[in-house]
Amino acid sequence: MRIALGVEYDGGGFCGWQTQRARCSVQDALENALAGIAAEPVSMVRTVCAGRTDAGVHALAQVVHFDTTADRPESAWVRGVNALTPPALAVTWVRPVAAEFSARYSAKSRAYRYVLLNHPVRPAAESGRVGWYHTPLHMESMRVAAANLVGEHDFGAFRSAECQAKSPVRTLMQLEIMQQGAYIVFDFRANGFLHHMVRNIVGSLVYVGNGKYGPQWISKLLDSRDRRLAAPTFDAAGLYLTGVEYDPVWGLPHAPRAALPPFSTLASVEA
Amino acid sequence: MRIALGVEYDGGGFCGWQTQRARCSVQDALENALAGIAAEPVSMVRTVCAGRTDAGVHALAQVVHFDTTADRPESAWVRGVNALTPPALAVTWVRPVAAEFSARYSAKSRAYRYVLLNHPVRPAAESGRVGWYHTPLHMESMRVAAANLVGEHDFGAFRSAECQAKSPVRTLMQLEIMQQGAYIVFDFRANGFLHHMVRNIVGSLVYVGNGKYGPQWISKLLDSRDRRLAAPTFDAAGLYLTGVEYDPVWGLPHAPRAALPPFSTLASVEA
Repeated sequence: MRIALGVEYDGGGFCGWQTQRARCSVQDALENALAGIAAEPVSMVRTVCAGRTDAGVHALAQVVHFDTTADRPESAWVRGVNALTPPALAVTWVRPVAAEFSARYSAKSRAYRYVLLNHPVRPAAESGRVGWYHTPLHMESMRVAAANLVGEHDFGAFRSAECQAKSPVRTLMQLEIMQQGAYIVFDFRANGFLHHMVRNIVGSLVYVGNGKYGPQWISKLLDSRDRRLAAPTFDAAGLYLTGVEYDPVWGLPHAPRAALPPFSTLASVEA
Repeated sequence: MRIALGVEYDGGGFCGWQTQRARCSVQDALENALAGIAAEPVSMVRTVCAGRTDAGVHALAQVVHFDTTADRPESAWVRGVNALTPPALAVTWVRPVAAEFSARYSAKSRAYRYVLLNHPVRPAAESGRVGWYHTPLHMESMRVAAANLVGEHDFGAFRSAECQAKSPVRTLMQLEIMQQGAYIVFDFRANGFLHHMVRNIVGSLVYVGNGKYGPQWISKLLDSRDRRLAAPTFDAAGLYLTGVEYDPVWGLPHAPRAALPPFSTLASVEA
């Protein structure tokens, strides 16, 4: 039987999604817990995910599938598994799926959000949860630059040296940039992402936002397909996998849980 | 010279505000960094704060004062100190103050926010950052109950056994409860708080919200002054010191930085 799961995690304490010999990954922690509930050896439980997030990257709506012979009620795969996972990892929903479903290959698009604190003082209460840039960034310049990235392109200039994808061509369906107080939020949606693609694009957009380059530089960078010309990779801490889109035919649930808490009306020191 | 600081921290990795022999507290980490910048022995640097938060409790706008003979530019007390503090702790502003100013005794009120995830699945991406209750809570009942707590009262029913305050009488100026998606936010403002007061009130309001007791129970509880009748203390993870109010005469800056990021428009799994 094939089972799909929604999975949420704070990536700060994990060495990324993918299994490691040190068993320090999200996949390791999840497979340990699934094996416990399935009463199968952990070597039998093999999960496949939609987005193989790096160390420090978070997921609010990761999607995973695995095969099992264990027949368990839904509550076992959610509450039972969540009793065995570390606090920073939880299953949010479960759904039996057709054997042809793949969390990875059936995904039509992935959505990532990058949250950047744009403030002179570095994050502290949110350390490990947001990226940071210290001088004010020009929103309109970044938006103009970002518009040049939307569409089907060779994103070779934004892939890491370790990227294992066969083709550097991806279709970026959305890149929206919003400002909320001291935070700048970058929302990405694409059919797929190259390794470090979001973090490298954010880094390059910051080079535009701070005035180092004009918005047109992004087009030249894209055309160059040369990673050495792009800006440094931005901090993993600000990156969240926020959604994976599948064809409705698979019958996956819509939306796990709402949102992270909005702290928009904080009291402050009276002067 | 007396100096006031704004301080922000994620309390998850600290054993509370107050100095401990193991040097695991926020105060220890801050005093270490201040001593480094002042080039004074750490035993010479003694900070006094407005709200002595417990282990796991966070602060977005803690206020601290200390005395030093070191004459340093403002950037040294902010950026210099922040280069020496751990990632989860930062100074947000600095201001020289009159020798009569006390971060603790000059404070007119403190504001705390409790963030509760009200959802069947426990928090994961936000573990350590929010409290959790699994079944739906009735907002209106909690609001009716909360209204009975506003004003000057003996809050003995909501103080911990270890509370060292001389008097259990406090003036609760504000207790607002808001719902935002799966989150319930409790905003408290009082001239001062007893030990565990916010977390005990939240626990008791949850007993009303889940229907275990009617809203009138809170008044009886308050009148009883008997801690043994109240609900269990809620998790420290959801508690944030969000502001401290002082007389404008002290010249402290208004508002540190804006807010934590609102994740209100998350993409989600399409069904």
